[in-house]
Formats: sequence, structure tokens, C-alpha cells
Amino acid sequence: MNISKRISDMQFSPIRKLAPFADAARIKGVKVYHLNIGQPDIATPDTFFDALTSFDEAVLKYTDSQGINPLIDSFIKYYKEWNINFDKDEIMITNGGSEAILFALMGICDVGDEIIIPEPFYTNYNGFSEAAGVKVVPFLTKAEEGFHLPKKEEIVSKISNKTRAILISNPGNPTGVVYTYEEIRMLADIAKEHDIYIIADEVYREFVYDGLKFTSALYMEDILDRVILIDSISKRYSACGARIGLVASKNKELIHQILKLCQSRLCVPTIEQVAAANLINTPKKYFDEVKVEYEKRRNILHEGLSKIPGVICEKPTGAFYITAKLPIKNADDFAKWMLTDFSYDNKTVMFAPAEGFYATEGIGKDEIRLSYCLNTDDLSDAMKIFAIALSKYKELNRG
Amino acid sequence: MNISKRISDMQFSPIRKLAPFADAARIKGVKVYHLNIGQPDIATPDTFFDALTSFDEAVLKYTDSQGINPLIDSFIKYYKEWNINFDKDEIMITNGGSEAILFALMGICDVGDEIIIPEPFYTNYNGFSEAAGVKVVPFLTKAEEGFHLPKKEEIVSKISNKTRAILISNPGNPTGVVYTYEEIRMLADIAKEHDIYIIADEVYREFVYDGLKFTSALYMEDILDRVILIDSISKRYSACGARIGLVASKNKELIHQILKLCQSRLCVPTIEQVAAANLINTPKKYFDEVKVEYEKRRNILHEGLSKIPGVICEKPTGAFYITAKLPIKNADDFAKWMLTDFSYDNKTVMFAPAEGFYATEGIGKDEIRLSYCLNTDDLSDAMKIFAIALSKYKELNRG
Repeated sequence: MNISKRISDMQFSPIRKLAPFADAARIKGVKVYHLNIGQPDIATPDTFFDALTSFDEAVLKYTDSQGINPLIDSFIKYYKEWNINFDKDEIMITNGGSEAILFALMGICDVGDEIIIPEPFYTNYNGFSEAAGVKVVPFLTKAEEGFHLPKKEEIVSKISNKTRAILISNPGNPTGVVYTYEEIRMLADIAKEHDIYIIADEVYREFVYDGLKFTSALYMEDILDRVILIDSISKRYSACGARIGLVASKNKELIHQILKLCQSRLCVPTIEQVAAANLINTPKKYFDEVKVEYEKRRNILHEGLSKIPGVICEKPTGAFYITAKLPIKNADDFAKWMLTDFSYDNKTVMFAPAEGFYATEGIGKDEIRLSYCLNTDDLSDAMKIFAIALSKYKELNRG
Repeated sequence: MNISKRISDMQFSPIRKLAPFADAARIKGVKVYHLNIGQPDIATPDTFFDALTSFDEAVLKYTDSQGINPLIDSFIKYYKEWNINFDKDEIMITNGGSEAILFALMGICDVGDEIIIPEPFYTNYNGFSEAAGVKVVPFLTKAEEGFHLPKKEEIVSKISNKTRAILISNPGNPTGVVYTYEEIRMLADIAKEHDIYIIADEVYREFVYDGLKFTSALYMEDILDRVILIDSISKRYSACGARIGLVASKNKELIHQILKLCQSRLCVPTIEQVAAANLINTPKKYFDEVKVEYEKRRNILHEGLSKIPGVICEKPTGAFYITAKLPIKNADDFAKWMLTDFSYDNKTVMFAPAEGFYATEGIGKDEIRLSYCLNTDDLSDAMKIFAIALSKYKELNRG
């Protein structure tokens, strides 16, 4: 029976493909530290669960396709704190940031159109693009440069008459990079000069460290009709399982058109919307504590990596990921080996080989992504074990 | 700024486009009976809310992209009662039946491929197809024939070398038709002879009246690898707002490939899955009562329509919709007029003009869809008012 080429061409999640080996390790009695996924371990705020349990309608009805008013209003209020002003007709609630990206791509790209993305990038950007028939054209950012943007001409050289947008994740997954004001300004200039959009995935907005200031693409007043914001409560409130996100733009016509896509899937789950709307009442303290915690973890991970000879890893300043270049040839083999052939004190570490975060064939093979969604004690232990494993792996000349 | 052709070409929901006029009527103090939407008024079972409020994890995590095991198991158990056997690797949980349809289309169709659908059909089939770049090729079913399938050769004449599937809704939205065993058998033969799939949207499976027997496409043992089942708890358990559905097939390779699409949107909301998994414990009595209630309503609606001169409407035997042909030229105008210019006893009726359920330009203009998601007293009153309105509308020679 026929299976579509588009689905055959898609890749299975590179983050999840090592899962069977981790399962096997666990069955052998080995403790696996999971530095491979961006699933926060921080408790979801009570504000969410309080609203959830107080839901008292007899019939669980569809909501408006755009989303419920209290939730949209809560986001408007939230953005005001960031000096970003949205009207109600500029926001569509989506099934997580995932659907927001898909809808943004479908809203501005026809089949065969292109978007340019700094690589390494969040692997699902590929999935959404393939689903939408959109071609991803990557431009390279490097571990040695902390994954900051290359020169303007390098980015511009990737633009063709089919290019519709630059897609960025800021703060970055998988790199942890936080773009400077100058970098965002450069992208705004490119968007203006080449008549394209900026799709700004800012779901890690809260996770910026070292006292740095976050620059939203929406701070560029002269290109507001070109900015499409992707957002989600998943990371901000440690509520990944709620699948509540949004796509927003000051370009009202685009958002109005995207309503058609929202209507085609009727609505986002009702109760999750009701619960998410109450997150705006989460005390500010919650974020302050979370941020301090992640910053500590980032330091443990970065210090641990810095001590290992041959590892290249600039200190990232955002999100909860580090992408590091290792002194080995095949990080995929190393990741698998750590689950199947290695353990120290009956423990091992799972991470994501970074190759899957690159669109360009053959690069990133010596890089890995580590997430720090793990408490500081475990993280210190994991880094110790990781260093031992890498040293042993190199001794075996597998690298 | 560029907006994609594919999204510009999509239509806004024809079911929802009269909403502003209904709002205006309400503001004027007119009571509007809503026979326009398939939002059941029946209470969602307690089993759902019980599980919801007993959720006690501190972190609202992602689930597996496929869905949580208890939910998949509950569906397997449910299907067994219908003599349908699924293994765990043959089911993917989706965001409602909506996402299930989109994933089915993307899984078997590349851009430019075709699916054939009996019209009138659920209007979102168009939306999903456009989103997936798939061409809908309709074949006509008629009010005079109770919207049963035409002769085999008429269906076959629509098949080209680009056809990948026949998509059916059984019981049917918007027609209320329930296909006979012979009709499903005929579709199975066509699928086999022309090497195509059957996408069977069976979300109204429980809603079959007059003691008729429901025939699932999955009862055709010789074509099980060609059947893709679309399902949802929305109508069955009056839980539209939960957005829990599934795509399933005995074609394991197809379902395995569809996992990639599931991975790209990470997962379906966690808490809704947990709550939905407990619906399997809903007492059978719930369905029996619901069915009796809907059958009563169907009778009120059908008798009401049958008494109106010139209305063509065979008695439908399933779902909770009736599509009727009216003795007027423009049902769209009539629908709007009823909201803006008519009221009786300060009440009026809202329904869906059926034109939006047809893919063929120019047909269905004299047809409407009525849903019976309203209690019997209101429904009787609504039918009385509807008859008066139609008579008055014709007097005005607007018809």
C-alpha cells in the first residue's frame, strides 16, 4: 500500500531514537541520567492545577477556534510586562508551540517555498517544514563562536526569491545562545531589505542568565508586520503536557487568515485553556527561583565540560541546553555506547547527538546536546560520569 | 506581506460564518435556537471529570507521542466490544478526529494526490485537504435517495492514477446517512480493485437508530490493510472540548510512519488523555439513554420537516444531523434573513446552509443542515418557528 513520499522522507525524532537502548540499560539495572530531553523537572505552578480542579461545566464543549478570551487576555497582560503590546485579534491559541510553528509556515509559505534557519536548530523545525512542503535552507553557526549569528552577508547569501522567512529560536534550542540586540537588529534589517518575515520562537524568553537582557524580535518597531511570534507555556511554567501555545503577529491580516487553520481543527482543549489562563496569577517569585536554579545547573554543566580536554563549549546564556563539540568523530556511536557498553558505579548518562539538529549533511557528527532539566546533585554526578566515559571511549580508540 | 496561496484559498468555516448575525439577533433580545452546530448538550460522563480531578503529578510532563498506554488500552478494549481487534502498535492518539484526518491524508498522499469523497461532506475535510495539498474529488449523493451511495460505476469514474483513498463519514455528517453492509462492501471492492485506501471516519458509530446495524469498514476482512480508521471521543461521550481522537489501521507500517507526524507535535495534552482513559468505565446505560434521546429528537425534526410542503428529506438513521432540500433558491440568504429580519414570538432558528458541504460549485444552494443537539421541547418549538419562517420567506418571494 502507498505511503506518501513526504512522510517516508521525514525522520523519526533523533532525540527519542536512543530510547530503546536506555530502556535496555535500565532493565540491566543501570541508572540513566537523562540529559537528552527538554522536559523540566520543576513543579508546575499550583495556579494551573487550582483552575483545573475548579472547572465545573457539565458539558465539555468546543471553545472558539481562536481560543478562550480569558487565556488570550492573560497572554496580552503577560506581554505587557515585556513591553510588547498585542490586541486580541493578533493572537491565536494553538496546540503548543508546535502547532504555532506549523500554522506560521502554512500561513506564509506555499509548497516549494523556503525558510532560512541558523543551524543547529530545534529538530522539529524540519518535521513541520516537511509536513508543510517547505524547504529548510540552513546557515551555519559554530560552537567556537557560542553559536552566535554569522556575518550579514553569509545569511543574505542563503536568500532566494522563494525565501519567505528567517526562523529563529531565541534563546536557542539546542544551543542556549541568546542573541544580542545587534543580532536581532541585523535580522530585522535583512527581513526589511529582502521583504521576508521573521518567525521568532521565543518560548525560552524567561531563561536568560548572567543578568543579560533579552531582545525580542518584537522590539524592532519598524518591522512589526513582519514578525510572527511563536510562544508556549510549556517551558515557562513547566507545563509541557498542557500543549498550550500561540501564534501572534501585529500583522492582523495574517493572523486573520491563520484563523482558517484554527477552524479546521475546531479548537484547542478546553480545560487546558481554562487552567492555563490562571497561570498569569503565578507569583513572580516562581520565575526568580526557577531562573536561579537553572543558572546553577548551567554552571555545573559548563564547568564540567570545560574541564574535559578537547571539548569546545562556550558558556551558553539561555534556555536549558548546551551544545558542545567533543574530541571524537561520531557522537551518535558514543551516545549509544554509553547506554549499551558503559557504566560507572552502575550509572550512565543519556544525551542527544547533535547531528539531528543540522540540516546540512555530514556536519555536527562530533557534537552533542545536553539539557539541564535535572537537580544539581544528579547533574554533578552525571558530569563526573560523562568525563570518565569520554576518556574511556577515547582510550578504546572508537572516537 | 506575503500570505500563502494555500491559506488564502481556504474558506472560513461556513458553519461559523453566520455567528455575527446570531450575536446581533441576541443583542436585539431575540432567542436563537441553535440547530447549526454539532455541539451536544448531553452531559459529559462523570468518569471523565473524576479522573481529571484525581490527577496528582507535580509536573505536567509530555507523554509519549503515540499517546499514553492506559488510553490506548481503553480504546483497544472499546473496539473489542465492536468486534474490531487492534494491537497497540496500530493506534496513534491524536488531537481529536481533526488531527487524525490530517495525519491520515499526509501519511498516504503527496502534494497533488487526490481523494474521493461522497458529497455533501463534513466541511473540514476540505480544510485538511487544502492544508495537506490534496485535491478533493467529490461524487454526488442526493437528498431524494437519503444520501446513500450512487452506483459503483459512478464512484469508480472519479478514480484517477492520483487517487489514494475514498474518505467516508459513516454515520454521516452532514447527512445522517448510515451506509448498509452492501454499500461498505462495494467500497471495499473498489478499494481492492483500484489499489486505494478507505479512510473511515466513524466518530458517530454509537448514533445509529431504528434498530439498524452499524457496518464498520473494519468488518471487511479482506481489505484490513487498506482501512484507516478516524475516531474521537467528542461525540460519543459529549466531550468535544477534550480533543481526544485517534488514527488507527491494521496496516502497521503506515501507523509506524504516522508516528513521525505525532513526534513532530510532541504529544497530545496529558491530562485530557488521563481523563479520557477513564471513559471506558462509563456505564453502558449512558449510551442507551443518549441514543433514545437522540432518536426522539431525530423524529421531531424529521416529522417537522416532512409536514412542510416542498421540503425533501428522507428520514436519516444516524449521527445527529439532517440535510434537507428546501423549496427555495438560496438557503444562505434564508439563513441570514432568519437571523436579521425574522422572529416569531421573539425567537428564531439558526442552521447551516449546506452549500459549504459541497465541493462542486453551484450545488447544494437549496439545502440546509440541521443538527439536533437540543432538548425535545426546544426542538419542537424550533421546528414550529422554522416552518412559519419558511412560509413567510416564500411569501416575500425571496425564495
